[in-house]
Amino acid sequence: MLRLDTRFLPDFPQAFKEHGPLLLQAREALLAKRKDPQSMLGWMDLPEDTETLRRIRRYREANPWVEDFVLLGIGGSALGPKALESAFNESGVRFHYVDHVEPEPVLRLLRGLDPRKTLVNAVSKSGATAETLAALLVFLNWLRENLGEDWRRHLVLTTDPRRGALRALAEKEGLEAFSIPENVGGRFSVLSPVGLLPLAFAGMDLEALLMGARKANELALAPLEENLPLKTAFLQHLHRHLPITVFMVYSERLKYLPAWFVQLHDESLGKRDGEGNRVGTTAVPALGPQDQHAQVQLFREGPLDKLIVLVVPEGAMEDLLLPQVEGLEGEAGYLFGKGLFQLLKAEAEATYQALAEAGQRVYTLYLSEVSPYAVGWLLQHLMWQTAFLGELWRVNAFDQPGVELGKRLTFALLGRPGYGS
Amino acid sequence: MLRLDTRFLPDFPQAFKEHGPLLLQAREALLAKRKDPQSMLGWMDLPEDTETLRRIRRYREANPWVEDFVLLGIGGSALGPKALESAFNESGVRFHYVDHVEPEPVLRLLRGLDPRKTLVNAVSKSGATAETLAALLVFLNWLRENLGEDWRRHLVLTTDPRRGALRALAEKEGLEAFSIPENVGGRFSVLSPVGLLPLAFAGMDLEALLMGARKANELALAPLEENLPLKTAFLQHLHRHLPITVFMVYSERLKYLPAWFVQLHDESLGKRDGEGNRVGTTAVPALGPQDQHAQVQLFREGPLDKLIVLVVPEGAMEDLLLPQVEGLEGEAGYLFGKGLFQLLKAEAEATYQALAEAGQRVYTLYLSEVSPYAVGWLLQHLMWQTAFLGELWRVNAFDQPGVELGKRLTFALLGRPGYGS
Repeated sequence: MLRLDTRFLPDFPQAFKEHGPLLLQAREALLAKRKDPQSMLGWMDLPEDTETLRRIRRYREANPWVEDFVLLGIGGSALGPKALESAFNESGVRFHYVDHVEPEPVLRLLRGLDPRKTLVNAVSKSGATAETLAALLVFLNWLRENLGEDWRRHLVLTTDPRRGALRALAEKEGLEAFSIPENVGGRFSVLSPVGLLPLAFAGMDLEALLMGARKANELALAPLEENLPLKTAFLQHLHRHLPITVFMVYSERLKYLPAWFVQLHDESLGKRDGEGNRVGTTAVPALGPQDQHAQVQLFREGPLDKLIVLVVPEGAMEDLLLPQVEGLEGEAGYLFGKGLFQLLKAEAEATYQALAEAGQRVYTLYLSEVSPYAVGWLLQHLMWQTAFLGELWRVNAFDQPGVELGKRLTFALLGRPGYGS
Repeated sequence: MLRLDTRFLPDFPQAFKEHGPLLLQAREALLAKRKDPQSMLGWMDLPEDTETLRRIRRYREANPWVEDFVLLGIGGSALGPKALESAFNESGVRFHYVDHVEPEPVLRLLRGLDPRKTLVNAVSKSGATAETLAALLVFLNWLRENLGEDWRRHLVLTTDPRRGALRALAEKEGLEAFSIPENVGGRFSVLSPVGLLPLAFAGMDLEALLMGARKANELALAPLEENLPLKTAFLQHLHRHLPITVFMVYSERLKYLPAWFVQLHDESLGKRDGEGNRVGTTAVPALGPQDQHAQVQLFREGPLDKLIVLVVPEGAMEDLLLPQVEGLEGEAGYLFGKGLFQLLKAEAEATYQALAEAGQRVYTLYLSEVSPYAVGWLLQHLMWQTAFLGELWRVNAFDQPGVELGKRLTFALLGRPGYGS
């Protein structure tokens, strides 16, 4: 379950009511595009796609030999799987993310892997991502050299249903390949095979994950008063004059979730609007309680230029009672017999109050617990929030024109034909 | 080696010259405090402390049985060791950071460890950090239950030389303990035993690390024209009207370095100044090339409210040549025969140019390579930069008064005597 707490923003309920017509209009405008495949709204339908889930399950069951799963992918192809796998890996399969191009860590990884126990998953919607292609050259070659003809069983591709170099390679070599629907973009793809395939190998409860996401869909279509995604989108909208939005998660297991959110928010909304204005706020990742000892000093005494969002679990799957230890009664006696999770919750509550007291704008999203259901709900909720904000800020939340120049300059520096200077 | 590139900030050299007197005055004011132990400037002397290094070496050699190193510490007690260990672990000792209080990952860690092969290092300057004390209760109890009287050999403390609960425990139980000098604060402690002890178990070249840091000291005391720390401090000072400073590192091995810098910058400089003004800029962590697919869209087309710092290695220890692969000539042919590091450098250069072209303020710090020497230089350089900024912005860079309220509220919620409501 997901629950919004705005106790320190007393102006919010009234403002939300007043802006109701604007918000409903934004939702209407968004949903009107749903039938256009160019509009990239396929992420709304992913939680219903049980057929793909079945196919992924069969593939996972047919490959019980996998001990190391190497994901070649960057940005939206890596951040979602990593955020969920690190929280919910129950299988013991080891995951390795090659979402970079630094030679030394790649060489170290190759030297430590047993190719016979390794499954390589190359993930790129376009099939043209330079970093992913470079890694694919290395790993495909490594599989071939070590496994001979058997290499094909150790490589699985996740890409566009029809186009691009990965799809062509799959067809030419008869490789197993999963599709990212044409109308689903990278940063909205975590519930497509981009996420589901690795997470099946991690042993995560994918039914629960999708069920949670369906709950977010239901609320996004609900009337205003129950519409959680419109509420948090409006909270972001109301504070768009503040340059920074902090996303602070009180869960070690969800430590990679802020990076996923940063991409979703920044790359979707950091844009020129129709009139050429530079739009967007900068998402800052944070973790609790770690950042109480790092960023909170600034949040408390530094400039009031932030909207701060806390994500806090309300319950633990399993708590750990702190034992009494002789010799530590003086300084740690107050902790004896307390639960570790009790300490976590107290710190989150104290930080919430302290940030409000400092004059920062802050609200909390409570997760019932760190479960596949609650986190699936949260991810899809944040995708709706982002899509609604795209409408409110009059930007296309589903493209990324700003990264093109960097790509062209890289190609020119590497002497790719047609890009020379 | 560390090299500053400001080619896209043509106004910088002249402004630096003009502000020379102000900058030299700031340095003088800082150095004048050096003899006062209250001023917390002991980090300047750590690179010279070869006696502590010798003692740590002897301890490491006396304990060759360690296979798992568990660090209990949070904030400055964890971020530095983590940033360096993940880049330079050559020993194969596995590191585990308990810098949080979520019960499930702690339980999972305990269930997977062999206590006979595990060394636990509790790190807290004050000996009063709630998260670290909670973790210590759990791990001390676990060691005692599993190892009987032998538990003492498996616990080592890093804390204040005289005060606090950890120091008292060490004396009562006869535990091995290393000292954080009284005049060294947490976020400036990476070259004290806070970092050196774990890094000795990681097999890092600590002589080279300290030698690099001494080079930064030398430059910080050099005349204006050669004074790299005053130059980058001035670059930050010149752009203090921008709310955000991005710290983007092009190295997978240094992926935890941005989090270390965020603490150093935010917690040192996010303060009320003498007149009660809210001071500070917000550091945003970023990685290259990953964030080209996440944050760069916003950096290019979003608001011009950022100073962006790129940290880029100029050379690799070992490159990896990309092989030719049949079937991928079309899309990936331009990569055949190129080095992976060549791709990394091209991407960094392309991003640098593209960000400047977009109108963002951006400069680059080139590292000769990702080596202990160059990174030791970089860390100490950034500490000098921060200390100089403290003088320029008239804040005490070495305290953290803003986190007190959160602590008091936590204690009250947990019913610690004297903190009840």
